[in-house]
Amino acid sequence: MTEANLIALLTDFGLKDPYVGIMKGVIAGINPKASIIDITHEIRPQDVLGAALVLASAYPYFPEGSVFCSVVDPGVGGKRRIIALETQSHRFLAPDNGLLTLVCERERVVESASVEERRYFLEKISATFHGRDVFAPVAAHLAQGLDLDKLGARVSEITRLSWPHPQMERNTLTGEIIYIDHFGNAISNMDAELLKSTFGDDLLKITVDCKGHLIQGLSAYYAQAPPGQPIALIGSAGFLEIALREGSAEKDLGLRRGSSLTLKKGK
Amino acid sequence: MTEANLIALLTDFGLKDPYVGIMKGVIAGINPKASIIDITHEIRPQDVLGAALVLASAYPYFPEGSVFCSVVDPGVGGKRRIIALETQSHRFLAPDNGLLTLVCERERVVESASVEERRYFLEKISATFHGRDVFAPVAAHLAQGLDLDKLGARVSEITRLSWPHPQMERNTLTGEIIYIDHFGNAISNMDAELLKSTFGDDLLKITVDCKGHLIQGLSAYYAQAPPGQPIALIGSAGFLEIALREGSAEKDLGLRRGSSLTLKKGK
Amino acid sequence: MTEANLIALLTDFGLKDPYVGIMKGVIAGINPKASIIDITHEIRPQDVLGAALVLASAYPYFPEGSVFCSVVDPGVGGKRRIIALETQSHRFLAPDNGLLTLVCERERVVESASVEERRYFLEKISATFHGRDVFAPVAAHLAQGLDLDKLGARVSEITRLSWPHPQMERNTLTGEIIYIDHFGNAISNMDAELLKSTFGDDLLKITVDCKGHLIQGLSAYYAQAPPGQPIALIGSAGFLEIALREGSAEKDLGLRRGSSLTLKKGK
Repeated sequence: MTEANLIALLTDFGLKDPYVGIMKGVIAGINPKASIIDITHEIRPQDVLGAALVLASAYPYFPEGSVFCSVVDPGVGGKRRIIALETQSHRFLAPDNGLLTLVCERERVVESASVEERRYFLEKISATFHGRDVFAPVAAHLAQGLDLDKLGARVSEITRLSWPHPQMERNTLTGEIIYIDHFGNAISNMDAELLKSTFGDDLLKITVDCKGHLIQGLSAYYAQAPPGQPIALIGSAGFLEIALREGSAEKDLGLRRGSSLTLKKGK
Repeated sequence: MTEANLIALLTDFGLKDPYVGIMKGVIAGINPKASIIDITHEIRPQDVLGAALVLASAYPYFPEGSVFCSVVDPGVGGKRRIIALETQSHRFLAPDNGLLTLVCERERVVESASVEERRYFLEKISATFHGRDVFAPVAAHLAQGLDLDKLGARVSEITRLSWPHPQMERNTLTGEIIYIDHFGNAISNMDAELLKSTFGDDLLKITVDCKGHLIQGLSAYYAQAPPGQPIALIGSAGFLEIALREGSAEKDLGLRRGSSLTLKKGK
Repeated sequence: MTEANLIALLTDFGLKDPYVGIMKGVIAGINPKASIIDITHEIRPQDVLGAALVLASAYPYFPEGSVFCSVVDPGVGGKRRIIALETQSHRFLAPDNGLLTLVCERERVVESASVEERRYFLEKISATFHGRDVFAPVAAHLAQGLDLDKLGARVSEITRLSWPHPQMERNTLTGEIIYIDHFGNAISNMDAELLKSTFGDDLLKITVDCKGHLIQGLSAYYAQAPPGQPIALIGSAGFLEIALREGSAEKDLGLRRGSSLTLKKGK
C-alpha cells in the first residue's frame, strides 16, 4: 500500500475543549509531515453506531494509505481493546467496540493487531484520555508506515454492532432512520441496491410512508421539491433519505433516529 | 498568477457530518500537497447572501493564487451552473447563484468558465453532493494550476444578488443590518467610505438610531464603551456595526438581519 | 530551540464567522509552509481565565518550537499590550491580560517582548481585529524563527490573573469547579499532587462533597461507574473532576464554574 501520510480523525470530543488540538500536537511531534483531516468531532457523545456510519460514508473518498483514527470510546481506561485493521487500501485504528463494524462488512481485512506495544504510546498513559496517549501517537506511527504486527498480536474476532436491517413482509419494506444530518435530512438504512432489487428500476412508482406522510416516488435531487413538501431521494452515501426543501425533515416531520418508514410499490 | 496551492473552503455543511472531511479527502487524493483552510462551514443552510458577505470579507487576506471553493448550493442537482472566475489575484469556484456577487463588484474578472468538463470531476456524480463530486476535485485541479478554459466555455453573465443598498433622504442615511457575528455584533451595509462621503470626516458628530437606541458618535474600538452600553464603530471589514461591550447587540438590543438603522448629523 | 514551524491557535472567535480563516490566510501569505493547529476557537467570548486553562492543558503536548497564538482579547484596540514570551521549549503570543498566567507559573521564561514593531504587522491595522492585523502576521514570523528582541523591548512584569486556590481548613479541603468540558465533566482546581500531599496515597478513602452529592473514593476511569452515578477521578490534565457515566455532571448535578466542592478523609 502506498503511504499517504494522511491521518483522518473522527471523535466525539467536540471542538470546545483542547482535546482534538492536543491529539494533533502529539501527532505533529512524532510525524511532523503528516496531513491531518478532521472527518468530524461532533459525533454525539459515546454514539458508537453514529461513528460507524459516519466513518463508513467517508473512508472510500480518502486516498490509498490513509489512516483513520476514530475515538468514540466510552470504555476508555477499562478492559476494551484498541484495534488496528488494514484493508486493501486503508488502515483503521479504533476501540474494539463496534466502531469498525461497517468497515469489516464492506472491506476485506488483510491485517490486524490488538494495539498493545507501549513503545508507540506516550510515555505516561492516563486512564481517561487514550486519544492523546495511545491513539494519536499510534496513528502518527502508522501514517509513517509502521507495520501492524509491530503493535501487537493479530485479532481473530472483533466486536460488531447489531445493525438494524430492513425487513420485507407482504410487499412492504420496513426500514428505519439511522442518521439525521446538519440540514435535518433523515437518512434511512435502505440503500439504492436494496430498493432496486426489491422494487425494480422504476423507483418513481414507490410510495414511502414516513410517520403518516405519504411520498409518491423518488426525487433525483433536493431542488426538485416544492418548498415545504417532503421528498424521498437517494442521498450521497447511497441510502434512501427524507428531506424537506427549505425545511428540516427532523424538525418539520418529527423524524428521529429510530423512526420507522415503509415502502411499497404503487400508490 | 503565482500558484499558492491553497484551497479555502466555505460551505453551509456544518461540522457535525462528514461532508467537509470527505471534500478534503477528495482533494488530498488529487492534490496531496494542497493546503486547505476553512473559512467557515457554518453559513446558515442555503444562505447565499450570507456566504457572499463572508467570502468578500475573507478573500483579500489570502495569498495570491488561492482558490476559493464555496458551496452553498440549494440548487444542487438541478440546472444551475457551476462557475469558476479568475481575478487578478485569486480564483473562485461556486454555484452560479449569486454567491460571487460581491467578488464581481469589487474585482476585475480576467477569466471565467462554466464548469462542465467531467474529466476533472469524480467518476460517479451524485445528484445531491456536488461538493464532493465536482467542487472538491475541480478545486484540487485549479490549485495545481489548471487553466480555466479547460473546464468549459467562458461565461458572459453571472447571477447577481440584489443587494440592500443604503438610502439617503432628507439628511438621513438609512441602512440595515446584514450580518450578526459570533459575538452578537450587528454589522450594517454602510461602509466607512460612504459615511465619510456623506457626513465628512468627523464621525463623532453622527447620531445612530437603531431600533430606538440612540448612539452619539462612533467609537474607535470595543473597550471604549462602558459595559452594557451600545456603541457604533467601523468593524474589521470596513462596515458600521453596533456592538455591546460584555454583551450582545443581537440579544440585548434585539437586532436581526434586516433591522434598519438610520444615521444623521448632529444630536 | 528547534523551529517546528507550527502555529497553534486559541481564540474566542467561534467558527461561524470568517475570522479564524482570515487569520490562517494571513499566516499562509507570510509563512506558507507553517503547520497550523486549532486548539479551540470556542472559548467563551472574552473568558480570559478559561483560555488560560485550556492553553495550559494543551501546550505541553506540542513539539518543541511550537508557537502558541492566543487571542481572547476584550481590550483590543485599547492600551493593553501584546506580549511574546519564550520558554525553554515553546513561544507564546497573547494580549497581556492574564492569558499567560499559568504558562508563567509553570515554565521558566527565557525571553520576552512587548510586541510593537510594526514591520511585522499587516500594513493597515484596524482597531477591532488584531487577530488578523497583528497576531497572525507576528505568529507567522515567530514560527519562521524571528527572534523576540526584534518585536520590541523585554517586559519586566506581565499581567496575572488571580487564581482560585484550594483552601485547607480543619481537615477539609475546599476547591471549586473551574471548567466544564464538552461531555459535561466538571473539572476542579485541585490537582493530583495536592490531593496526595494532603491525604496521602490512598485516594480511595476520600469523600468528595459536591453540592450535597457524596462520592466515596476516587475512580480510575469513567467506565468504572454505574450509569447515572457521579464519580470523582483524576482527569487527563491532572485535576480532580466530577463525571457522570452516560450523563453530564453539569446538567444532571447542576455543577457550574464556581461551584464549590469539599474533600475530606474517611466517610
